[in-house]
Amino acid sequence: MTAAAITITPTKARTPGTIATPRAAVLWVAAGIVVRSLVEIIAAKRDGERLATTDIARLVGGLMTGELADYQMAAWLMAVFFRGLDDAETTGLTEAMLHSGRVLDLSSVPGIKVDKHSTGGVGDKVSIALAPLVAACGVAVPMVSGRGLGHTGGTLDKLEAIPGFRTQLSVADFTRIVHDVGCCMIGQTAEIAPADRRIYALRDVTATVESVPLIVASILSKKLAEGIDALVLDVKVGRGAFMKDLPAARALAQALVRVGTRAGKRVVALLTDMESPLGAAVGNALETREAFDVLTGGGPADLVECTMRLGTEMLAMGGAMGEQDARVRLAGAIASGAAVRTAEQMVEAQGGDPRAVTDGSRLEVAPAEIVIESPRDGFVARVDALAVGLAAVAMGAGRTRADQPVDHGVGIILAQKPGARVARGEPLARLRVRPGADASSIAERVREAFTVGEAPPPPRPLVLDRVDTGSTF
Amino acid sequence: MTAAAITITPTKARTPGTIATPRAAVLWVAAGIVVRSLVEIIAAKRDGERLATTDIARLVGGLMTGELADYQMAAWLMAVFFRGLDDAETTGLTEAMLHSGRVLDLSSVPGIKVDKHSTGGVGDKVSIALAPLVAACGVAVPMVSGRGLGHTGGTLDKLEAIPGFRTQLSVADFTRIVHDVGCCMIGQTAEIAPADRRIYALRDVTATVESVPLIVASILSKKLAEGIDALVLDVKVGRGAFMKDLPAARALAQALVRVGTRAGKRVVALLTDMESPLGAAVGNALETREAFDVLTGGGPADLVECTMRLGTEMLAMGGAMGEQDARVRLAGAIASGAAVRTAEQMVEAQGGDPRAVTDGSRLEVAPAEIVIESPRDGFVARVDALAVGLAAVAMGAGRTRADQPVDHGVGIILAQKPGARVARGEPLARLRVRPGADASSIAERVREAFTVGEAPPPPRPLVLDRVDTGSTF
Repeated sequence: MTAAAITITPTKARTPGTIATPRAAVLWVAAGIVVRSLVEIIAAKRDGERLATTDIARLVGGLMTGELADYQMAAWLMAVFFRGLDDAETTGLTEAMLHSGRVLDLSSVPGIKVDKHSTGGVGDKVSIALAPLVAACGVAVPMVSGRGLGHTGGTLDKLEAIPGFRTQLSVADFTRIVHDVGCCMIGQTAEIAPADRRIYALRDVTATVESVPLIVASILSKKLAEGIDALVLDVKVGRGAFMKDLPAARALAQALVRVGTRAGKRVVALLTDMESPLGAAVGNALETREAFDVLTGGGPADLVECTMRLGTEMLAMGGAMGEQDARVRLAGAIASGAAVRTAEQMVEAQGGDPRAVTDGSRLEVAPAEIVIESPRDGFVARVDALAVGLAAVAMGAGRTRADQPVDHGVGIILAQKPGARVARGEPLARLRVRPGADASSIAERVREAFTVGEAPPPPRPLVLDRVDTGSTF
Repeated sequence: MTAAAITITPTKARTPGTIATPRAAVLWVAAGIVVRSLVEIIAAKRDGERLATTDIARLVGGLMTGELADYQMAAWLMAVFFRGLDDAETTGLTEAMLHSGRVLDLSSVPGIKVDKHSTGGVGDKVSIALAPLVAACGVAVPMVSGRGLGHTGGTLDKLEAIPGFRTQLSVADFTRIVHDVGCCMIGQTAEIAPADRRIYALRDVTATVESVPLIVASILSKKLAEGIDALVLDVKVGRGAFMKDLPAARALAQALVRVGTRAGKRVVALLTDMESPLGAAVGNALETREAFDVLTGGGPADLVECTMRLGTEMLAMGGAMGEQDARVRLAGAIASGAAVRTAEQMVEAQGGDPRAVTDGSRLEVAPAEIVIESPRDGFVARVDALAVGLAAVAMGAGRTRADQPVDHGVGIILAQKPGARVARGEPLARLRVRPGADASSIAERVREAFTVGEAPPPPRPLVLDRVDTGSTF
């Protein structure tokens, strides 16, 4: 049988409501008639076929032009959830999403441009210290960040606690500030990877978020659009993170490194602990204060260490120096005040009050305080990051829907971290709340986030693993 | 941790375009916060969970109210493709779709109401003979049929070859005609199982057609909405059918019988051969002529046998009689002319020319004829039903998209069936085409549908299996 005479209109984005019978699409294929319609690409992934880069590009392109309907992309995403994507397919998806929008050209900025991305956690304010710190050491950091959702905070919300600070800048301003200051921190613009935004919004409401290749493509498409040369990933592991256990986090980190490398970037990932919140502050202004403390040589030990480890990786890639040299350089930038000055310049360039970097009182914090006391003598065995994060959301510091506003001033300060010896009645945490707010259920929740036991818990390393292109060690 | 104080807005039908991060939905679940949002129902099926009837009803109801978006249903359908539905879930889906619209009340029609449904094939015009034949034997047949798509024909297209015949009737007219004549054959109305139409249209464009539970729910929801008490299913098996092999067809038949029985109906399925077309005629008017031939005691042997076997099942369920009695009754209705009279009454009641039942010339057929001759002496080993069906589509007798018109007059008459001895040059098939049509490629295709071999093929039984509630034998 020859098929040449049959005119087949590919079933593309047909309006639901059209009546049809269950047999057609399959049988065209069964009959050996090869018309690779978009529906057939969906069916191919459904059946476990490896898709060509061109097929993936047709899906993503079709979504943007309307040739592929949202419901067709949703079905494909669910098929990907079950069948996965190999590295070539994931790279194809990443690049299709990347090229759905504008890819920034930072060639006017000299040197290697390096960014850091965290998969998200509770109390993770590292970026706010890290970007100016690394920039002060001579490696440019163009950073596009996100907002908080659910129990995890977002860098943009934290930055916006700085009076006047603007996170929505034009590409021209962004480029200029990276050039002049060495770093700039903005939100995703409509021009950057719009296909990722469309696809992510679909994943969020179709239960297709938890797919490693889809996560990888989403993260990398946005980051590669920044015009960077290298990327350090902070893959959080534990109760307050997206990845709850080390094997899952390692698989994600390895996929990110493999696909990022395929896409032509230098990529390294650190797997860091997120069983308990990072640092002491949870909540926007409180976290920004704490991040700036790191730049003046203060800050909680775990936050400092996380910042230094990530900064070391960034300098190593951006400045072609060894780990020891990088550490010395970072410490020097803090000691000399260069990091603070870079942060002040960035804040000022983005419309914010630069005095906030060294004067925390410029960051408004809710005035009322509720103290959570230890119910017993003992050791802090655990501070549940997820519980603390959800308590912060309930206080108004975060959001459960993307369109909710946040209260920058409320939050939680952990007075004790895991391993600390505490006496009965000693403060475990302080809640900063609005006067008159009924915080009793939240206080109870924060209290329950702490486990105070007889003996100190075994120490947990901050960095659990490191993944680069060649190795996992 | 208690969850009572957190206000969570279920992520329902959120507009794509909303920015969100990949972590939220899962972690609410991880945190033990039980808010069974529609997204969580999708995730539950994705993760292999058995869904409660109420959850399935919320999805279907949500689709109809707009609370669940098309893309969410599409993702759920793909999850069902991978995870399946058990009988309880399939029954729940069937009933949710059934009750999305009007369920006809035929209690004014005395006795058991029985319908037949075919899963579709090439040359399958059985319904047109069967409905009046069974009705003439005293069992009412309210029948809602479909249109052709792809290589398979549809009863409505065939009926509309009768001048004046209307397949879109009001429910009141449908009920009256079933009451007065004993049978009526209409198309699906907007009132019957609208959720099935919505869901089917989505499946068609999202590569989620080929799922047994979804097929079962789609078929049964429409059929149960007719107000029937019993249903005979003709599950076609072979190259021209949706199910290519007996095990797959048997699995579908068993699921249909089990779920139909759960839904409170008497259901029997016959598995019948669809390797080659049923009867000799393929094309709308040609097929309607052939179906009416059966009522006057003529017609090809396989078509007569298929009609009698299905009719026997219908009478057995509808009239509580044994197989032998049912066969005698059916033969009597043909011999006495009662079947023809019922057909004439039905055609007239539906606005058609009743003379068409006994006078085939009232059904307009394209005047030009192309004869396909046997290339050699031998035996017809095979007539490929799929190839013949696709040739008919290419001629204009069928459609590749639901919104295409069909030409009722064109078609193919098989001059020989498998097993026939043929001489070189003897006609294998006759094509009825419009004068001037370039049918050379179609003629070639029909020629290639025939395999003429040295020896006669082994005989194939028409009925390959029978499935009822209690047994498979």
